[in-house]
Amino acid sequence: MARWEPGARQRLVRAAVELFTEQGYDATTVSQIADRAGVTKSTFFRHFPDKRELLVAGQETLCRLLADGVADAPESAGPMAAVAAGLERASTFMGPENRELGPQIQAAVAASVELQERDALKTVGLAAALTEALVARGVPEMAAHLSGELGVLAFKRGFARWSEADDDGPGLAHYALAALDELRAASRALD
Amino acid sequence: MARWEPGARQRLVRAAVELFTEQGYDATTVSQIADRAGVTKSTFFRHFPDKRELLVAGQETLCRLLADGVADAPESAGPMAAVAAGLERASTFMGPENRELGPQIQAAVAASVELQERDALKTVGLAAALTEALVARGVPEMAAHLSGELGVLAFKRGFARWSEADDDGPGLAHYALAALDELRAASRALD
Repeated sequence: MARWEPGARQRLVRAAVELFTEQGYDATTVSQIADRAGVTKSTFFRHFPDKRELLVAGQETLCRLLADGVADAPESAGPMAAVAAGLERASTFMGPENRELGPQIQAAVAASVELQERDALKTVGLAAALTEALVARGVPEMAAHLSGELGVLAFKRGFARWSEADDDGPGLAHYALAALDELRAASRALD
Repeated sequence: MARWEPGARQRLVRAAVELFTEQGYDATTVSQIADRAGVTKSTFFRHFPDKRELLVAGQETLCRLLADGVADAPESAGPMAAVAAGLERASTFMGPENRELGPQIQAAVAASVELQERDALKTVGLAAALTEALVARGVPEMAAHLSGELGVLAFKRGFARWSEADDDGPGLAHYALAALDELRAASRALD
């Protein structure tokens, strides 16, 4: 058997989400997840430290892509344009599997305070990645922080709409950038 | 002995923060916290479900005050003015003890992923309380969400500055409202 079964990681996430949906997060064990995915428990632990981390899989990659997109934006780009570049880059990481599992993952998170905490920290991490990348471009700290928060809101809203949309519609980037535009328009009209 | 020792709650928070600072969050037990505060373990558990909840004590009260302030703002107030009213109301809850312990609590949070998760969920809760109260006033959902996020950023920034400031300076409300103004100015100048 190969040390890294191809697709094991994705099968584990899918199996976990199914089990969380069927019987709840608390009642689901790592053994059950591994069984359902057709791998051993030790394969599980090669991919994830525990069942909780399954649901925020890819956080580090997302942070890196967001930051890289911001860093690579043209020098002339303002904070919002740089955030848009980060969202476009991060969107390339999310495929049909993410789109399909998204609503089930959200349902599992909504049903478990433990997962809500982990999910909230993931959100903080994504905003921090954007903020840091903007500060590194010379954006003043307050504007960078604000742009980072707007970027994360747009990514989450865009993801939700993408998940609800038609299979053969545009990709995540389209929805995330549209949400960023809407948030920016709402922010101009706030007072 | 009275069932609710006066000041026990505050003594427990202070004892916990001291112990977290001295020996770390993981190494600190509920028994040690109760001992240091001069109360029994069962008194601890009358006030808090576990050592983790100590550091987000008051979250529900803060949410309620934020929401009440927004609800009671004049009908003519836009979302930002309503958020400002919420921040003013919530600030009344924070006294010299909170101001003094704030930096130590932040240090404990910074040193523990477990506490960071709980703290992140608290932030989500505060933003949700503001957002819901704004939606109840008829603010469109996107603007309400954005204003809620700005409000929480302002509260956190205001709190940090208040904690660093002179003892006999202005109260938290002053710093929170100033931070809200700055965030609003930064948001106008984003593109």
